[in-house]
Amino acid sequence: METYQLAIIGGGPAGYTAAEAAARAGLSVVLFEKRSLGGVCLNEGCIPTKTLLYSAKAYDGARHAKAYGVGTEGVSVDLPKIIARKQKVVRKLVLGIKSRLTAAGVTIVAGTAEVLDAHHVRCADAEYECANLLLCTGSETFIPPIAGLDTVPYWTHREALECKELPESLIIVGGGVIGMEFASFFNSMGTKVTVVEMMDEILGNMDRELSALLRAEYAKRGITFHLGARVTGVEPAEGGIRVHLEGNCPPEAEACRLLMSVGRRPVTQGFGLERLPLERDGRGNIVVNGHLLTSIPGVYACGDLNGHSLLAHTAVREAEVAVQSMLGRDDTMSYRAIPGVVYTNPEVAGVGATEESLQASGTPYRVVRLPMAYSGRFVAENEGVNGLCKVLLSEPDGRVLGAHILGNPASEIITLAAMAVELGLTAEAWKRVVFPHPTVGEIFREAL
Amino acid sequence: METYQLAIIGGGPAGYTAAEAAARAGLSVVLFEKRSLGGVCLNEGCIPTKTLLYSAKAYDGARHAKAYGVGTEGVSVDLPKIIARKQKVVRKLVLGIKSRLTAAGVTIVAGTAEVLDAHHVRCADAEYECANLLLCTGSETFIPPIAGLDTVPYWTHREALECKELPESLIIVGGGVIGMEFASFFNSMGTKVTVVEMMDEILGNMDRELSALLRAEYAKRGITFHLGARVTGVEPAEGGIRVHLEGNCPPEAEACRLLMSVGRRPVTQGFGLERLPLERDGRGNIVVNGHLLTSIPGVYACGDLNGHSLLAHTAVREAEVAVQSMLGRDDTMSYRAIPGVVYTNPEVAGVGATEESLQASGTPYRVVRLPMAYSGRFVAENEGVNGLCKVLLSEPDGRVLGAHILGNPASEIITLAAMAVELGLTAEAWKRVVFPHPTVGEIFREAL
Repeated sequence: METYQLAIIGGGPAGYTAAEAAARAGLSVVLFEKRSLGGVCLNEGCIPTKTLLYSAKAYDGARHAKAYGVGTEGVSVDLPKIIARKQKVVRKLVLGIKSRLTAAGVTIVAGTAEVLDAHHVRCADAEYECANLLLCTGSETFIPPIAGLDTVPYWTHREALECKELPESLIIVGGGVIGMEFASFFNSMGTKVTVVEMMDEILGNMDRELSALLRAEYAKRGITFHLGARVTGVEPAEGGIRVHLEGNCPPEAEACRLLMSVGRRPVTQGFGLERLPLERDGRGNIVVNGHLLTSIPGVYACGDLNGHSLLAHTAVREAEVAVQSMLGRDDTMSYRAIPGVVYTNPEVAGVGATEESLQASGTPYRVVRLPMAYSGRFVAENEGVNGLCKVLLSEPDGRVLGAHILGNPASEIITLAAMAVELGLTAEAWKRVVFPHPTVGEIFREAL
Repeated sequence: METYQLAIIGGGPAGYTAAEAAARAGLSVVLFEKRSLGGVCLNEGCIPTKTLLYSAKAYDGARHAKAYGVGTEGVSVDLPKIIARKQKVVRKLVLGIKSRLTAAGVTIVAGTAEVLDAHHVRCADAEYECANLLLCTGSETFIPPIAGLDTVPYWTHREALECKELPESLIIVGGGVIGMEFASFFNSMGTKVTVVEMMDEILGNMDRELSALLRAEYAKRGITFHLGARVTGVEPAEGGIRVHLEGNCPPEAEACRLLMSVGRRPVTQGFGLERLPLERDGRGNIVVNGHLLTSIPGVYACGDLNGHSLLAHTAVREAEVAVQSMLGRDDTMSYRAIPGVVYTNPEVAGVGATEESLQASGTPYRVVRLPMAYSGRFVAENEGVNGLCKVLLSEPDGRVLGAHILGNPASEIITLAAMAVELGLTAEAWKRVVFPHPTVGEIFREAL
């Protein structure tokens, strides 16, 4: 029986981050992955969607280059090539992770691992002993029980990412981040998109004002939104799929294709988790402390599995904290400044508190709301496009509680606000930092 | 005679920032500008160049969209339209500044102001009394005394920004930031560009390694570089201009056009500065303290004029500090983390110390050097392009001393490093911030 100081189940962002960090710190590490290193994020999530969305952006850019004095004729998309490029990008990054782990001395085992107890894992016919066990099996698409769904060939994100032919029309059930990113992609590609969302606004917990602005922008570009709409049934229709709706919307909608993106839930079965008497919270999530340690000494749970957040970057940070804990070093997880990004075009990003969350908790705050056109660079690079930046400050002491942006490159500049929120900066302290001119990021300084 | 608490000479970034901040804080403010609000930065510097460069990027993007699965035919540029759009962007932003100043209650006087003494300024026939005087007259293009330069119709950045027709070929004397941005623009437009630089590397004080990589990239795209080359004379030639060179280069070069971008120097004449007995340093620069106060009480000098830095964002921060000082509030200028950006494609950006500056001062440091391909998003959005990120850490305590990036969007993400350097973060503290995934900015976390 091989013995390791750390056994990791799941090779996604939490797993590969922990593996490399622990191995570089001198621990012996074995990592079990049943599919492909990189997990959902790299193989069928963050990276492939961003690769497709960048192709869509290049397509939009070429079609609208005229606004910048650039003429184009006959702009077209080559979907098979877009999909092939995506595979290539994923392959390259998976290989990159593999080589980093190998270089760090991590033992990678391909196969389905099974937890025997807190210190023993089985994979194929071999047993492994471990001092520490890190569980990071991630999450999977949640398919709600809808009448008739089993009678139609619906897509999840997985099939959407592999689509060989652009559908003429597409119904997306679920207007969260995943739904909206696919809506954006297929809208750019020329597909007639309908988004069905059960809540009264898209994008879940993102800033409502920005979500509504993004929705209005995409409505202008031809996407149909049904908000507050519940899907009561699905059935085959001529040339596609018919969806029955209930709520403030037409009673039905039809399209060639149906994409289900209602949500995701932790993967808790199929790897012997039930053998560990872990403490759970009222919603069934595994309880972890600030070091990602479960109720069993030496057993950690990071990433989507622990239910804190379904974001790769949360998983990465959790994995770092867990490894520090195994090494006896001081570090604690903070969820105060977890950025959220929607890679539509324009992008939406936010971090920290929202107006909604502050109102719900009764926290006094002040909001500064600034059109993105206050940034000279934004004006120079965004012909005919608007955007909005919101910064939320505590009252009366002016600490940065949150920030939210609609406008490119929101994804990259939101990290500035993440630093401000995480470090507990006041507006005054943040403004003492010199931001390069002209940049879009300056919008924060303007707002302060 | 009108009396103000603050008189400002010069309406560039320092001037308009100070005017708005002071007026919003309740001071009565008069601002004198002899040309157009926004100064060189907005009217003939940062903003117009970035607008042109974005058109070049759109053009490059459309021509190379195939790499992303997007087909284009007949991609062309419309230079008059590019120039017209630039004017429109500048006009919009100038109007924006004007309306902000007006809203704040600033009195704007168009005309050439003249300092009479520390508390009196004359403009046209009117005299103005002021408690505080802020001098921010900026800088102007420096034209070196080169034999024959007066016999040819050479360009400065000003004429280059207004060019009506693309030259077939162009010699750029001066391979600093301005020279390289124009080199990048005209190279994209199809002009045969030659850059003549007196130093042995382009981009002055930027990180040498990245400067060399950028140069190699543009050499591949057809730009000819003559480094360590001194221009000894200029003369008209058939169809253009001939430049005589000395150094490790051919003895002469010819092109249709010549752009002089050797450098800039403070504007110290033409506004009565000589009437103020200001302390100067050995190089003739006005001495200011950490509050931008000169040796005369109530007289401040901000921006290019004081010779600290020739960057709009330095001027903006200096102006803020000066106003705080006038208001009796505690604030001090820090030059520790002034970012520098070159808006070529790819961009180069840096902040804080360079390896060269640390070696010169004998400061112990450690450099982490990471290919940009460690960022999944960079890979997804940059087909066939390389880049490099360098982070410099103090030894042994691991504080972030500087960071340098070659790769888009370096301009936007360098601010993350500016925050780390200015706040004195250690690598460990910086890494506790959660960066959204996937972003290019994550490259810093990967490097830490």
